[in-house]
Amino acid sequence: MTASRALPDRVRRVQAEMAERGIDATLLFKPENSFLLTGFNPIIYSHPVVAIVPRTGEPIMLVHALRDDHGRASAFVNDIRLYGAWSDKVTMGPNWLDALGAILGELGVREGTLAVEEDFMPVARQRQIAGHLPSATFVDASHFIDHVRLIKDADQIAMARIAARIADTGMDEAVRRVALGVSEREIALQSMHVMNQLWSSDYPDVEVADFGTLEGGAQNGLWTWALAGDRMFFNCDNPTQRQPRRGEAVSVFIWTNANGIHAENERTIAFGPLPDAHRRALDTILDIRETLRPMMKPGTRYAELFLATKAGLEKAGYGKNIPGRIGHGIGLGAHEHSSLDARSELVLEPGMLFTLEPNLRVPGTGATQISDTILITEGGCEYLTQSRGGYIEV
Amino acid sequence: MTASRALPDRVRRVQAEMAERGIDATLLFKPENSFLLTGFNPIIYSHPVVAIVPRTGEPIMLVHALRDDHGRASAFVNDIRLYGAWSDKVTMGPNWLDALGAILGELGVREGTLAVEEDFMPVARQRQIAGHLPSATFVDASHFIDHVRLIKDADQIAMARIAARIADTGMDEAVRRVALGVSEREIALQSMHVMNQLWSSDYPDVEVADFGTLEGGAQNGLWTWALAGDRMFFNCDNPTQRQPRRGEAVSVFIWTNANGIHAENERTIAFGPLPDAHRRALDTILDIRETLRPMMKPGTRYAELFLATKAGLEKAGYGKNIPGRIGHGIGLGAHEHSSLDARSELVLEPGMLFTLEPNLRVPGTGATQISDTILITEGGCEYLTQSRGGYIEV
Repeated sequence: MTASRALPDRVRRVQAEMAERGIDATLLFKPENSFLLTGFNPIIYSHPVVAIVPRTGEPIMLVHALRDDHGRASAFVNDIRLYGAWSDKVTMGPNWLDALGAILGELGVREGTLAVEEDFMPVARQRQIAGHLPSATFVDASHFIDHVRLIKDADQIAMARIAARIADTGMDEAVRRVALGVSEREIALQSMHVMNQLWSSDYPDVEVADFGTLEGGAQNGLWTWALAGDRMFFNCDNPTQRQPRRGEAVSVFIWTNANGIHAENERTIAFGPLPDAHRRALDTILDIRETLRPMMKPGTRYAELFLATKAGLEKAGYGKNIPGRIGHGIGLGAHEHSSLDARSELVLEPGMLFTLEPNLRVPGTGATQISDTILITEGGCEYLTQSRGGYIEV
Repeated sequence: MTASRALPDRVRRVQAEMAERGIDATLLFKPENSFLLTGFNPIIYSHPVVAIVPRTGEPIMLVHALRDDHGRASAFVNDIRLYGAWSDKVTMGPNWLDALGAILGELGVREGTLAVEEDFMPVARQRQIAGHLPSATFVDASHFIDHVRLIKDADQIAMARIAARIADTGMDEAVRRVALGVSEREIALQSMHVMNQLWSSDYPDVEVADFGTLEGGAQNGLWTWALAGDRMFFNCDNPTQRQPRRGEAVSVFIWTNANGIHAENERTIAFGPLPDAHRRALDTILDIRETLRPMMKPGTRYAELFLATKAGLEKAGYGKNIPGRIGHGIGLGAHEHSSLDARSELVLEPGMLFTLEPNLRVPGTGATQISDTILITEGGCEYLTQSRGGYIEV
């Protein structure tokens, strides 16, 4: 017998949202969300992994029998059910849908109100489930799960710190490589290698797999990429053999995760002195970042951060270059649902984690890309990413 | 003006499937599928990338304006449309749904039969689209797109060869590391580093990003992982600090891709002589692989390969350890839809790409994991992965 494991607070918070909405059970298939409420990332999702959350009591995890040993070693839930046929495992039957129906029967909610992730659940799968449970009522889970995900629990914050430390180490190495004038790829490769070495030496119990899809799995999610010179206007691309020329900037992007919780660290590094107009764009962004720093505390609205950025950019003459948003939520997703934009109604609370990345793309002049991972605390905020900031010239 | 680019044969094959089914336009949102018919992987999918395939004529790609420069540099389609607001780009309007409706209007199919990926399209998005196009009829695209994906075009086969060469190089390095008795992580890290170096030096125009999700992107998809000793019964896991002990086996798993096309190379390496029972399991699998080799040619059914494996395992006394399948399609997905199992009705054709991986998990005895990426040719088959096979002891 394995000792019963403690459940993180997010289980209670999901159940509170369910009670408020009269939901009897929530069925989570999205890899980030099933992990959120079970602690299990199988890496490969060819067979559904379902978190079944009753309104009271512990979540149940339903997995294919071939995931049994791995699931029991990883998950924080105590009740793990199996479907499929595998080795000598005893299962609930050959397919997940029958097993899901049987579990909902045990819970007495086959005719109840069931929440599913409407922003993820494929049309065909929803049709299967609804056909199997003709008396159930289906409502959306995505909205309240995203809401719960805004606030990170202590276990998640600890992992965000590790992800940020790995990212910082990768950025330090990337800055050293930019100084050598090597290609985007060389910057990326050496930075990724150093991050992996740190992971290997310092974090034996941490996983760095990312979340997979129906067709693939991401075994290692410690990623660096770089865009040199005018390639910044691609915004995102796989690194190439392009080397920076003197007077150009290189933007380095690092995305990491530790046990599924992500961090982001992005820096724009001048390779020799920049032309005045580009330097001015970079300095403007750095000034705005300092203006925002004291505003990042409980009670401030996302929109206020955006509007302060917009005002700063307009004052500096960049009124035609206002970005659509200046950051996003981060956590189990590298890009979580929330956006720091003009329309957001979110108010900062302790435990929120987001990227701060007001940036400029000025055609003919240049671009900036600076991002940190920020945690809101009781008293203000904490920059989880802590590698060298400010103007960086090599 | 950019010169008009040639379209790969898969566009014609998709349109033939559409004509047969009376479909006026196919709308593809799944990253693998929009890439299939446009050639563009934005890596980040926070803003929808839609491939719109009319029954005749060229596919149209609809992307957010911030993907314009990157999209034009990468895609093989000539007609790229923009939505959203970004820098000085002229777009079709602020949101993708209105732009999609306008394009379908141009094509004269707003009231026509539209195919969508029912195994991927989220319930909420389908509701939005159907609400916007109340007179359209929606049918499934997943089935016929998966069918088209079974056969690889020449451009895809060329990339599969590159992905396989990278994987072979990673496996050679992994075997050397296993011989040193280092941990799963050390095997994985050095193997990944060597693969990245080969990519960097030999393939300047190839991308190795994998396909992302709504919440994340995979910048680098050259992955090695390893499971030592009884950890093989986890089937899949992030590599740990576990080192092999003499007499144990280490299974090494490598997944790579080149411009989105994947290869897989998996080997089970004996760390010193294995106990007789484990050695016998491994030899049985190696014998079965040789039996299957001449069967892999046009006209053979997937199911025949499975049944020959099953017969071989039963004859050797492993009748209780028959796996559920002995391989799967591979291409834009590391795990594509098709399964080499008893129920499959697929018949091998030239251009099919799949993994061959009959394997054993025998509780108390040990496991095997050997997989190659196989291309079906006119005359038979070609092993794209070519690193050392057979019994490997270090």
